[in-house]
Amino acid sequence: MSISDEALEKHREWQGKISTEPKMDIRTRHDLAVAYTPGVAAPCEAIAANPESVYDYTVKSNTVAVVTDGSAVLGLGNIGPLAALPVMEGKCDLFKAFGDVNAFPICLDTQVTDEIVKACIQIAPAFGGINLEDISAPRCFEIERRLNDALDIPVFHDDQHGTAIVVLSGLINSLRFVGKKAADVRAVVNGAGAAGIAIAKLMLSYGFKNVTMCDRNGIVSSTMEGINDAQREMLKVTNLSDVSGTLADALVGADVLVGVSAPGVVTRAMVESMAEGAIVFAMANPVPEIYPDEAKAAGAAVVGTGRSDFPNQVNNVIAFPGIFKGALEARAERITEPMKLAAAKALASLVSDDELSADFVMPDPFDPRVAPAVAAAVCECAREAR
Amino acid sequence: MSISDEALEKHREWQGKISTEPKMDIRTRHDLAVAYTPGVAAPCEAIAANPESVYDYTVKSNTVAVVTDGSAVLGLGNIGPLAALPVMEGKCDLFKAFGDVNAFPICLDTQVTDEIVKACIQIAPAFGGINLEDISAPRCFEIERRLNDALDIPVFHDDQHGTAIVVLSGLINSLRFVGKKAADVRAVVNGAGAAGIAIAKLMLSYGFKNVTMCDRNGIVSSTMEGINDAQREMLKVTNLSDVSGTLADALVGADVLVGVSAPGVVTRAMVESMAEGAIVFAMANPVPEIYPDEAKAAGAAVVGTGRSDFPNQVNNVIAFPGIFKGALEARAERITEPMKLAAAKALASLVSDDELSADFVMPDPFDPRVAPAVAAAVCECAREAR
Repeated sequence: MSISDEALEKHREWQGKISTEPKMDIRTRHDLAVAYTPGVAAPCEAIAANPESVYDYTVKSNTVAVVTDGSAVLGLGNIGPLAALPVMEGKCDLFKAFGDVNAFPICLDTQVTDEIVKACIQIAPAFGGINLEDISAPRCFEIERRLNDALDIPVFHDDQHGTAIVVLSGLINSLRFVGKKAADVRAVVNGAGAAGIAIAKLMLSYGFKNVTMCDRNGIVSSTMEGINDAQREMLKVTNLSDVSGTLADALVGADVLVGVSAPGVVTRAMVESMAEGAIVFAMANPVPEIYPDEAKAAGAAVVGTGRSDFPNQVNNVIAFPGIFKGALEARAERITEPMKLAAAKALASLVSDDELSADFVMPDPFDPRVAPAVAAAVCECAREAR
Repeated sequence: MSISDEALEKHREWQGKISTEPKMDIRTRHDLAVAYTPGVAAPCEAIAANPESVYDYTVKSNTVAVVTDGSAVLGLGNIGPLAALPVMEGKCDLFKAFGDVNAFPICLDTQVTDEIVKACIQIAPAFGGINLEDISAPRCFEIERRLNDALDIPVFHDDQHGTAIVVLSGLINSLRFVGKKAADVRAVVNGAGAAGIAIAKLMLSYGFKNVTMCDRNGIVSSTMEGINDAQREMLKVTNLSDVSGTLADALVGADVLVGVSAPGVVTRAMVESMAEGAIVFAMANPVPEIYPDEAKAAGAAVVGTGRSDFPNQVNNVIAFPGIFKGALEARAERITEPMKLAAAKALASLVSDDELSADFVMPDPFDPRVAPAVAAAVCECAREAR
């Protein structure tokens, strides 16, 4: 049976992938009196008197809302909030299974930025954090920024920052493998949407100095046709000599290619033109920018993709559960750039010198050390910033 | 230790009373591929093609949002959405423990009617029903009505209708115990707010013919000072001879008193003035309108309260889990008056002739037959209406 058919059958059997469960027995009148009326009035009054104590007495301490408007779901596009629900349920399950963080899907029946922002603010009291998921660019930037300004709980667009953190962890180890330094290499990020921009920013925060972005029209430069505001903003820190040209032009002599673009857009010749010890992350899904065997034949030293059936899968599940776990533990109000860097470094450090190879630059999702290590790094970083 | 102290201690230990749990193991790459990407795309596409199939593949089939604005929480009043969270978590637990229905708290950071309505509409995709909780009158009427008009999932204000259903089940059996018929008795409902009006309406739907409402200003009549729109509407079906006067006046010769008002407002003399075989439900909490021993000494044949330490506790937990379970099973779009009546009758019928006594007119909350019986009655009623 294909994965598709099996998934459909299983989803029909599960009728929903999340269950909400009481944490205590409710078998006697006494149980009821303690967990519900009249006993519950005591924590209510404690919170009314001291709002901070909501973290001592409620689910807010360890629960994330997984919020979408269904506008950019997987590779399926704008399928709407109802059809996005299976993905959000799955994401919630991963939060629990990998990070021991409660999560519940909030599928919003609106795609208007102002309304999404308002709805998130209004539902915030019961949640300790908000994971924005599968919301299309450029709205996702504004929504995340406005929510982080308005709320005192962390708001994190996983498609941007989760991806950036995992990519950076893989790049850190790839550079370690080929023996180069971030400050010395020339990197190209192909795909100048939400994920590409977040990746480029985090690479720069980490210490990459020379990053050029491309999109379907070629190198993002001041003269590129159809450049948008977010891309123009990136020109302050990328492509500093304001070169124009094609992706092929950009790749000549480059050390690193990160692709978050479209199937097959990177040719063998392009990879051949890159520097010795080239690192290629080709994450278009399900068909990558270039297949690993081709990229390797063209001389790439390390190749990663978004797929689980090739080595070096860039999989957000190694990041987001631990990131929220750590942020919740620290009661951080935001997930800052230093916290993201701490997460990427913690992930990279889980691959030992002995394990490190061309086919193993990021830890395995099922490695039980992953979420605790990420959480500890994020929590420590948040506490140090106080 | 007092219940209050024990509740505070336990709430601190639990740090939230609900856990969200994956329904399946996520231990292998194959598990991930089926529950999440790439397999999850199959149910997403199925729902995009046929929105109704969301009930086959997702939590929407069996999940309720417990929504509050924190404006009328227990007897604590307007303590806001954050401080209301422990109550909402408890309610969610009861949905699961008693009805096997998933539920999640939505504590809205707004008390503006339009915003509450909009927020509920926007979060609706992931939910199969909405339980409105602890929202103050008269906003609760408009919110419930507008949501039921706008949404194709049932929206139910438990403080009104859950209470009304349980009271009616108790009245049905109380009448059975004293040997009177609903159509023949004179009933007084003291407290003309949200709960009182819902109770009076459901009593009339069941077959009571003579119902008079009172509030703190006395009998609700066309000449009562400070009468509001909802109360004026009720004058079309209650107090048909438009009598004015005090609660004491209304109770002379009455067969039934339902109190959802204030501590101690019913005197011994008032109960003494009622008809032979008087039925008194005194549900002010924690101090009832009149204590059971006093009411009995004054001649009442059956006495109920809102408290678990007296017989005949009017406890919504015998109604709402089964009501939503049944409505979800039937995929009902609303919880109609006939469905509420069916629930009340199903509850009443669980007390056998042998069990029926002055101190036992409603089934025990821990009787395992309760939620299935209510659900079956509600589901059947919903299906018949198709």
